[in-house]
Amino acid sequence: MQFAGSHILSVTQFERADVERIFTVADRMEPYAHRRRVTKVLDGAILGSMFFEPSTRTRVSFGSAFNLLGGEVRETTGFENSAIAKGESLYDTARVLSGYSDVIAMRHPAAGSVAEFAAASRVPVINGGDGANEHPSQALLDLYTIKKELAGRGRAIDGLRIAMVGDLRYGRTVHSLCKLLCLFDKVQVVLVSPQELKMPGEIVEELRQAGHEVIESDALEASIAHVDIVYSTRIQEERFSSQQEADLYRGRFRLNQSIYTEHCEPNTVIMHPLPRDSRDTARELDDDLNDNPNLAIFRQTDNGVLVRMALFALVLDVVDQVDRHARDVNWYTAGRF
Amino acid sequence: MQFAGSHILSVTQFERADVERIFTVADRMEPYAHRRRVTKVLDGAILGSMFFEPSTRTRVSFGSAFNLLGGEVRETTGFENSAIAKGESLYDTARVLSGYSDVIAMRHPAAGSVAEFAAASRVPVINGGDGANEHPSQALLDLYTIKKELAGRGRAIDGLRIAMVGDLRYGRTVHSLCKLLCLFDKVQVVLVSPQELKMPGEIVEELRQAGHEVIESDALEASIAHVDIVYSTRIQEERFSSQQEADLYRGRFRLNQSIYTEHCEPNTVIMHPLPRDSRDTARELDDDLNDNPNLAIFRQTDNGVLVRMALFALVLDVVDQVDRHARDVNWYTAGRF
Amino acid sequence: MQFAGSHILSVTQFERADVERIFTVADRMEPYAHRRRVTKVLDGAILGSMFFEPSTRTRVSFGSAFNLLGGEVRETTGFENSAIAKGESLYDTARVLSGYSDVIAMRHPAAGSVAEFAAASRVPVINGGDGANEHPSQALLDLYTIKKELAGRGRAIDGLRIAMVGDLRYGRTVHSLCKLLCLFDKVQVVLVSPQELKMPGEIVEELRQAGHEVIESDALEASIAHVDIVYSTRIQEERFSSQQEADLYRGRFRLNQSIYTEHCEPNTVIMHPLPRDSRDTARELDDDLNDNPNLAIFRQTDNGVLVRMALFALVLDVVDQVDRHARDVNWYTAGRF
Repeated sequence: MQFAGSHILSVTQFERADVERIFTVADRMEPYAHRRRVTKVLDGAILGSMFFEPSTRTRVSFGSAFNLLGGEVRETTGFENSAIAKGESLYDTARVLSGYSDVIAMRHPAAGSVAEFAAASRVPVINGGDGANEHPSQALLDLYTIKKELAGRGRAIDGLRIAMVGDLRYGRTVHSLCKLLCLFDKVQVVLVSPQELKMPGEIVEELRQAGHEVIESDALEASIAHVDIVYSTRIQEERFSSQQEADLYRGRFRLNQSIYTEHCEPNTVIMHPLPRDSRDTARELDDDLNDNPNLAIFRQTDNGVLVRMALFALVLDVVDQVDRHARDVNWYTAGRF
Repeated sequence: MQFAGSHILSVTQFERADVERIFTVADRMEPYAHRRRVTKVLDGAILGSMFFEPSTRTRVSFGSAFNLLGGEVRETTGFENSAIAKGESLYDTARVLSGYSDVIAMRHPAAGSVAEFAAASRVPVINGGDGANEHPSQALLDLYTIKKELAGRGRAIDGLRIAMVGDLRYGRTVHSLCKLLCLFDKVQVVLVSPQELKMPGEIVEELRQAGHEVIESDALEASIAHVDIVYSTRIQEERFSSQQEADLYRGRFRLNQSIYTEHCEPNTVIMHPLPRDSRDTARELDDDLNDNPNLAIFRQTDNGVLVRMALFALVLDVVDQVDRHARDVNWYTAGRF
Repeated sequence: MQFAGSHILSVTQFERADVERIFTVADRMEPYAHRRRVTKVLDGAILGSMFFEPSTRTRVSFGSAFNLLGGEVRETTGFENSAIAKGESLYDTARVLSGYSDVIAMRHPAAGSVAEFAAASRVPVINGGDGANEHPSQALLDLYTIKKELAGRGRAIDGLRIAMVGDLRYGRTVHSLCKLLCLFDKVQVVLVSPQELKMPGEIVEELRQAGHEVIESDALEASIAHVDIVYSTRIQEERFSSQQEADLYRGRFRLNQSIYTEHCEPNTVIMHPLPRDSRDTARELDDDLNDNPNLAIFRQTDNGVLVRMALFALVLDVVDQVDRHARDVNWYTAGRF
């Protein structure tokens, strides 16, 4: 695809070459995100951060990514009392707000709303999550993390063996990740969930159409024995009709250090889209894994900054200018990354 | 007036020469707002954006305007749990907050509160709306839009023929616009509203004192036949005592493409302070006007950025330095304006 | 202490030399805070401002201080709907958010939470208030104000005579200020409060252990006759079990101009941590003191910016670079400080 001026709305818009291009650019962002260098390539540019649904992590990650490229951020959160409540259409909102910034990152609770907004926007829009529908930057940072974690182990995305564990029915991130994996070759996907929270059939079908092997299971320990990655997820309790119903599944699949030691291969990578639920009733990834060097969950969120920087640099077409506007960091940063 | 260091609180503080000065400066902001050039003239300056009442559009417009001049924005929205709730006076709030920024843009639900705040502030304060009272930057951007739209039609503000339609009783923007029009010559104002939502008598009187012709009507179609501008407004339902009362008036005056074609002169400009109410029960400006090149409603909000940049440049006295701190935009902006 | 890379969590972490170092650096920030000079020493750095409990004053003060050093601010306020509500531990929150910024300023309602967060953070954390526990930057700005106010009167912190008045039981700021005073010599502290709102015994004990003279009283007028500073506080009504209980104490000790004239020494300095309660039922510092040049309450908040700039410059280790990245202010600033 042509990135300059494009919207980033869905993982389905990418070919394999596009994903690889994003990852190559993300690699080049590392000196800036890891605070060895400062770039001002987007000095004077404005990000409109429109989070019509709250999200500290994703919102701050987008904002920091834009700041790291030298740009400014104008932020809106929530939408009670807003113009939308007074009957304004998304078309009008988009026409107006796109006059205030150079690029927009947007989250909205309604599926399809970000695409509708983008159609009327005069500047590129990056989907930061539209309800149960899409969250493409999360899927990209997950896959980018897989690639980086496996690079040191002599393995690649082609030939990957991954177990996805937990709420595979409502977990938006695993859906999008599966779609991205369809762009690659010979992946083995082990899907571990309660019967009622299985991966939707159409996604399983897509994986198989792509030539991948799919195994479905409701037993954790056997399923994680021969994989490169265990991708654990939280029960999306806000999607259930009652707290009691969510409680039925919470805590069903728990990975801790002793299970890891007993069942996993030595360097199996542990991932999670976060937040992980650390309450006693859940603990899908136990705190006793925190010192396990294969726990990649915080490298994932760090990688999110790299991927979002890459998306901004691509849609604003400044990739080749980044290093030209750079200098060394001049403040204390010891021991950070 | 002397702009440097002044507060911008009310349209009544301006002479005609002041308004023209603001518009001249706004014109000079266009290369920056339209993303052909970047200026850093206010690099290091801080805008205190104090929106004690929510407003996405106005808040972001002020913030982006300040960013476009190179400055930073520190924002506060809402005021539950704030010091004011603990019994702090506006005097104290102003003394404190004006120590944190170089200029303040403020919205507050109580009429007169922004002026009270400004009296204690140590930095210039721009009124971003104080309840039903004043919203001077909106009136300025409306008049600036009228001037620009008419320029290409060989017409000017002097001699203007304008129809104001809808809720003229509670619509703050039409009140302020009328006051500004009193600074100009030979304006014809057609006021179209339900009997119960007529323009307040004292404003009609002011227009007549200024030598303008005022026609009041409750019939839309005849009223828009011979005007340069149709300025439509939303029913301000939040000002009515009940939803049912607002429902009596909503949808009373609807302009759509077929009415426009049948009744208006060929190039009649359509304006609206936004948000327009696009629900079926309202539709004061129908969506089928969206492709009409005379629909100026989004150029209005774009012009708001120019006018707010001009106000900041004037009160901080940097107008003549803007171009000196400038360079070309280096990112992708195709097709934006 | 070694400031570079350190957290600022509690006044108890400082030796006298540390406090004096902070004040020396704060003095050097004055040209920047008072808008004569602009520095860009932290150009490219990001402050994560995490206010899990609302606070306009402290939040904006930290943000502006960081902007005044040339850095950017990414802000989060409130924490309903956040990851914490989904069961995320403070450890996880800290690991994630510290990947998005170079330094964090944080407020949280739970005592000890900021220290817990800091333990997992990869960047320095400055405590902006953790419930009833600590608010070190407030204590520092109070003491810094005392030092500056007394300098012109030929007096110093050593030998200080100070009266603290009001709610000494729940007032977090007076507790922290007393702890800092323990680092100095020969201070006389007069504690004026209702019997039920006395200073906690352990703090009185600490003051005495430090060799200071402590006098407790419930009579205002006699207590303020021979002091350098009257430090008045608001009844912390949000800490009482009922509004009625708070009402018993509100308005008990009121200082106004006639009491000041009759009882205080000529140049006695009046301080208050703000907000002061200006409702008729409270008025611990009457508005008729506003023109008294010894009313230092707004100089206190201005000094807060200096102290917070100093803390940022110290923990990021850029003190000696500040002046090198500086230039004169180029916009209108007349009459501000």
